[in-house]
Amino acid sequence: MATINFKRIAKQFGTPLYIYEAERIKENLSKIINSAAYPKSKIYFAAMCNNQPEVLKIIKDQGVGIQINSEHELYLAKNAGFISSDISFTSTGISKELMKKLIEESIEINLDSVEEVEKFCALINNKSFGIRVKIDKKIKINSNEATNFFSDSNVGIQEKDFIKIKNLSKKTGNKITGVHGYLASNLIDTKPFFEFGNFLVYIASEFPDLEYVNFSGGFGVKFSEKEKDFDFEKVLQYYSSLLHKLSKTFKREIILKIEPGRTIMADVGSLIVRITNIKNLNPEKSEISVDAGFAELARPKIYNAYHKIENLEKTGTKRKVYDIRGNTALQNDFLGQNRTLEEVREGDYLLINKVGAYGIVMASGFPGKELPKQILINKDNIDIL
Amino acid sequence: MATINFKRIAKQFGTPLYIYEAERIKENLSKIINSAAYPKSKIYFAAMCNNQPEVLKIIKDQGVGIQINSEHELYLAKNAGFISSDISFTSTGISKELMKKLIEESIEINLDSVEEVEKFCALINNKSFGIRVKIDKKIKINSNEATNFFSDSNVGIQEKDFIKIKNLSKKTGNKITGVHGYLASNLIDTKPFFEFGNFLVYIASEFPDLEYVNFSGGFGVKFSEKEKDFDFEKVLQYYSSLLHKLSKTFKREIILKIEPGRTIMADVGSLIVRITNIKNLNPEKSEISVDAGFAELARPKIYNAYHKIENLEKTGTKRKVYDIRGNTALQNDFLGQNRTLEEVREGDYLLINKVGAYGIVMASGFPGKELPKQILINKDNIDIL
Repeated sequence: MATINFKRIAKQFGTPLYIYEAERIKENLSKIINSAAYPKSKIYFAAMCNNQPEVLKIIKDQGVGIQINSEHELYLAKNAGFISSDISFTSTGISKELMKKLIEESIEINLDSVEEVEKFCALINNKSFGIRVKIDKKIKINSNEATNFFSDSNVGIQEKDFIKIKNLSKKTGNKITGVHGYLASNLIDTKPFFEFGNFLVYIASEFPDLEYVNFSGGFGVKFSEKEKDFDFEKVLQYYSSLLHKLSKTFKREIILKIEPGRTIMADVGSLIVRITNIKNLNPEKSEISVDAGFAELARPKIYNAYHKIENLEKTGTKRKVYDIRGNTALQNDFLGQNRTLEEVREGDYLLINKVGAYGIVMASGFPGKELPKQILINKDNIDIL
Repeated sequence: MATINFKRIAKQFGTPLYIYEAERIKENLSKIINSAAYPKSKIYFAAMCNNQPEVLKIIKDQGVGIQINSEHELYLAKNAGFISSDISFTSTGISKELMKKLIEESIEINLDSVEEVEKFCALINNKSFGIRVKIDKKIKINSNEATNFFSDSNVGIQEKDFIKIKNLSKKTGNKITGVHGYLASNLIDTKPFFEFGNFLVYIASEFPDLEYVNFSGGFGVKFSEKEKDFDFEKVLQYYSSLLHKLSKTFKREIILKIEPGRTIMADVGSLIVRITNIKNLNPEKSEISVDAGFAELARPKIYNAYHKIENLEKTGTKRKVYDIRGNTALQNDFLGQNRTLEEVREGDYLLINKVGAYGIVMASGFPGKELPKQILINKDNIDIL
């Protein structure tokens, strides 16, 4: 893995350039598969973090499922070879047309509202569906970057409405067989997952036809040296223990489902950029302009996200403090600020790491840019995406 | 203008759909042209707000110039028929390669740093260039949404470095003929423009070879009923009076340049979306899911921007309070919150207004969507973009 010559590849393909490493996808996935000690568990890759067709094909070949949130992702999933029974749909506000399609194609759906359950039950009888539940519990989140934590969200069905949806399904012979919950994004701390797991399993126990509990994702990635690694095993073992107990209660094996995305894809991708100008602000600090910014990687601006930035020229020269920004007219378009790097020169390549998740999918090209090139390195092959 | 049947068009082309009205581009541009009372003035359209080829062609046909900030925008500008003398480049961190190209193609450049001036002077002799100056003055901004105001920005050349760049240009026979400054985005209040104008003209007076002062943009758009209309005439008359005085000092006519974008394009564009689900939160309020969100229009999420939302079904029924969100798995993906609309039904079309600027250019399709369709209505013609 360590032998990729990023500089040579950047020269060959030009910058800005997203580089994905296929082997790492496989490694990350097997780590997760091995952590999922529970006998009946199922992993769905959260396609929203990276839906490049070649990436999806590799993930499919590892034998896991895929979690989708839109009709376009359904197309991408099928195109990559995922079969219906390996696709799970969880979103909000599903239209009647899309719901019909998902039912016809036998895609598992987790419904997000009473109104969606009504729609489902008006469309079909004697089918199974899951529900996405509202996490109506204050869970303390300790995170630099819980990017999608939103305690006032109306996403998910509330406990007070369970009677209503149970009656609706009973009347139509439909069964509520799954419970899905979402905590937050990118948490390193494992504690919130325990509280969240307890709550979700308590909710799940209210549904006599239960077949699965889907804990979704939220598993964090260590982006900066200051952070710890995320303890996947600890969380999955806790989920397992919860499901063992739940299985005993139900006197049958309940399936454990998770939807990792970032933990599979983040460190698969790097963004190589080139220094287009260096502005000396004062003797201690300079501002580097590079040929990528918000246009290619939105997370620093939108979420104030940290991505490590390395100088690919290992010059061994003195270290200096730099702000790194996109070379556009956007004033506050920083990829990183106050970063200490070996002294750089115009034309040097920088590597921005762990951008394989929520990188290219959030890129708009704004302002005035085309989307960056992407390549996938698979052993000795390089595929242009 | 009032006769566009948005509902019929939405049915014909499907949603989400960006609709642009060509006539409005022309109207907005002539308003600005007529406000620019100063005899030697030049308008450059800020391409970053909307760079759709057909839009650029219409703007070109009105006889104005174009302001670009990247190599890709140079390509788009030339492709739309703009000639070199109508193109002005202002950005940050220009690479040597791009600078060479801009010089070769005789594109006006406003340089952003001492280092860029060094690069320019190393590339060429006996040429003219402009400088982008740092607004090193605290200007009080009263705005709900000064989206790009960033007082600690290092964009622009500081006054303390003027001797340095003057010497650099003198040695190489190059001339500093233009001064460019940028205040902030989307200001309705005219006062900051006066202070800013004073500062810029004071700076400009330090350059004996001066030919133009470029006040750039920042001109606001009234997005909500609570706001006033932006008084373009007042600001342009003030800029004119400043340049009349400056021209007297220089004993020649100095050119007045501006770079409007939003004021030309915002109300040209509407985004039509369709209601995919309605979730009743309580008797007073519901949450509407629609088939567009952050994926198609990023401003509400990124800038907390307000866009008026109308129900295209004029049912005359009672009014209700709604949150309007994208139908994806993103939790906090709202296009508008606490909006009072005539009661809506699933399948109804909503119109999100004034999205012609910073709309499609910032769209990423995230999560899991394709980019929306766009059409341009030009009298009786409809072009699919």
